[in-house]
Amino acid sequence: MSETNWLKDCEGFLIDLDGTMYRGNQAIPCAREFVEWLNRTGRKYLFVTNNSSKLPRQVADKLSGMGIPAEEEHVFTSSQATAMYIKDHAKLANPTVYAIGEEGVVAALEEAGCRFDEESPDYVVVGIDRQFSYEKLKTASFAVQKGAIFLGTNADKRVPTEEGLAPGAGSLSRAVATASGVEPVWIGKPEARMVKYSIKRLGLIPEKTVIVGDNLETDILAGINAGIRSVLVLTGYSGMQDAQQTLHKPDLIVKDLAELISKCEN
Amino acid sequence: MSETNWLKDCEGFLIDLDGTMYRGNQAIPCAREFVEWLNRTGRKYLFVTNNSSKLPRQVADKLSGMGIPAEEEHVFTSSQATAMYIKDHAKLANPTVYAIGEEGVVAALEEAGCRFDEESPDYVVVGIDRQFSYEKLKTASFAVQKGAIFLGTNADKRVPTEEGLAPGAGSLSRAVATASGVEPVWIGKPEARMVKYSIKRLGLIPEKTVIVGDNLETDILAGINAGIRSVLVLTGYSGMQDAQQTLHKPDLIVKDLAELISKCEN
Repeated sequence: MSETNWLKDCEGFLIDLDGTMYRGNQAIPCAREFVEWLNRTGRKYLFVTNNSSKLPRQVADKLSGMGIPAEEEHVFTSSQATAMYIKDHAKLANPTVYAIGEEGVVAALEEAGCRFDEESPDYVVVGIDRQFSYEKLKTASFAVQKGAIFLGTNADKRVPTEEGLAPGAGSLSRAVATASGVEPVWIGKPEARMVKYSIKRLGLIPEKTVIVGDNLETDILAGINAGIRSVLVLTGYSGMQDAQQTLHKPDLIVKDLAELISKCEN
Repeated sequence: MSETNWLKDCEGFLIDLDGTMYRGNQAIPCAREFVEWLNRTGRKYLFVTNNSSKLPRQVADKLSGMGIPAEEEHVFTSSQATAMYIKDHAKLANPTVYAIGEEGVVAALEEAGCRFDEESPDYVVVGIDRQFSYEKLKTASFAVQKGAIFLGTNADKRVPTEEGLAPGAGSLSRAVATASGVEPVWIGKPEARMVKYSIKRLGLIPEKTVIVGDNLETDILAGINAGIRSVLVLTGYSGMQDAQQTLHKPDLIVKDLAELISKCEN
């Protein structure tokens, strides 16, 4: 019996995007075949991304544009997870929120029935915002000091751009945390809650779900934190040497998605 | 012989402002008398402030407006100390700087002969800036990633304003540090360098200089870090109980500046 027998029983796949399905604007070889295989074998799956700025529709369009079949309902962003967290925890049906963020954050919060309020919101949500300003920092900090619950969509310090490694949502949250004296509740990977909400969305159980990604510190650690199995693909951020040195060991390491399909079938 | 005999030999006084000379826009009782006493007895002194946004002239005007005699040359800001640091360390006569900050930072850097450059500056300076933006954060972070030396005028996380505790220079620096992965060299109190540059400006020696302030964590710790004596006045931030509990013990605690004058004379 193979050590990866558990893979055959996996009904749900939580799949990272950057470094796993594509790099920049280029699909990674076999990304398309992997999705086709998931569809053919009746597996459930979600593309799980820390990116809070985009709408699920935009993420799906980007994948489709690269030849990878994807629908809006296959995408789960840290903004959607943040909105689920608020729905789960809010004492009232329509909680008030002050958000630092772009389209993706605003849409997810609106869909969850949140109302926006700068003065004394129930929640402050901080995602990446290319219009971040001292005024926004001050408004968020005042609200948190007055007792608003502070949620960070994700802790990513930097995001890769064509210009270089630009400030990520984690850098903006860090400013709010420093100014308010309050640490955020983090939502995105590597937090367990991102994985738990993904599993809930798929209607599965943790034992039958695996997370697949290229980053030991976000994807694999998220799997470990949530108590589910994880697969590292060596097509992105983390290399084999990183995997040997880290304390966050994936259950399986594959060189690419083709090898993962093959491990699932044999 | 009194335990405060050293006070009589003190030739230089480094004096904090908020909580020591004034509170908000109100002079603290005996602040004026204290300055008059310093002048009368031929003591040298500097008002040493972490505030990086104001020009020395503006700080002096504020004091004068409250009836406390003050000239521009009696003021030493964290922006001026930052400019002295650059002059001390720069390899070239006219180093390039990218600055996040207001009037006080820009003027101090210009006076020190710095030229401004966004692309690949020798230094990145971060002070408080009410026009802080994602663009500025990104520009600073890219420059630091490219090797610019990162200076924080002061680490104050929050500043008191009429609206409440608003984000301070330390919160902005924290965003740049998170995005760039580089910790700043801090300049203002409680750093020893702020005290050392103040003593240098006065042309004195540490043994003959004392720092006077209301804050154990900035003023008194700065004195301890720089190896000079310190006096805590109980007219501001830190109380007697704080002083009993802290590891940063001042050499002397006085209830107000009148008691300090009396201790210096008797």
